[in-house]
Amino acid sequence: MNKNSPYYAVIFTSLFSKKVKGYTEMSNKMEKLAKQQDGFLGMNSARNDIGITISYWDSLEAIKNWKQQNDHLIAQEKGKSDWYSWYNVKICKVEREYDFGIITKFEH
Amino acid sequence: MNKNSPYYAVIFTSLFSKKVKGYTEMSNKMEKLAKQQDGFLGMNSARNDIGITISYWDSLEAIKNWKQQNDHLIAQEKGKSDWYSWYNVKICKVEREYDFGIITKFEH
Repeated sequence: MNKNSPYYAVIFTSLFSKKVKGYTEMSNKMEKLAKQQDGFLGMNSARNDIGITISYWDSLEAIKNWKQQNDHLIAQEKGKSDWYSWYNVKICKVEREYDFGIITKFEH
Repeated sequence: MNKNSPYYAVIFTSLFSKKVKGYTEMSNKMEKLAKQQDGFLGMNSARNDIGITISYWDSLEAIKNWKQQNDHLIAQEKGKSDWYSWYNVKICKVEREYDFGIITKFEH
């Protein structure tokens, strides 16, 4: 990631419903697909009570294209009908950042 | 949270080192303290391999004040000496957001 250029974070926060069938497969598929999208910079996920996935993109255009990607549209519908009781999506501009230590395992 | 006003997200992404003594107590204490700060709007956390904590604030000034809060400074030092092998902090402006479903359990 070129930290000198402005870039964007999509914060996806979610709560599961009781229907989880097919979720893991779809989640893995969407992660692979997102990584192939133009403008994709990286992604982090964690889930306990609440699930948080943050993806990073080089432009608002790239975020819009990913939202409208065909397989992703199907996943979004399935998310609403089955997997999530609630979610929130925030589109954010990363204004600045700093690190401590050295990372080798993750992209960020 | 007044979603009509601009507000900010602090994305804290971290990896633990092997020293975890005292972490949970300090983490709980910092969460309570953050909630008492002027300009605090909400917070979400999850951890699997990677830990993600996102806190929301009504201004950059509020974020700066929290970073410099005395007990929080001590926690930050302890975080670097003991608990984290790596972390990254991103200060982001929330440009827009949308929800699906109704949330009752969490603030966001």
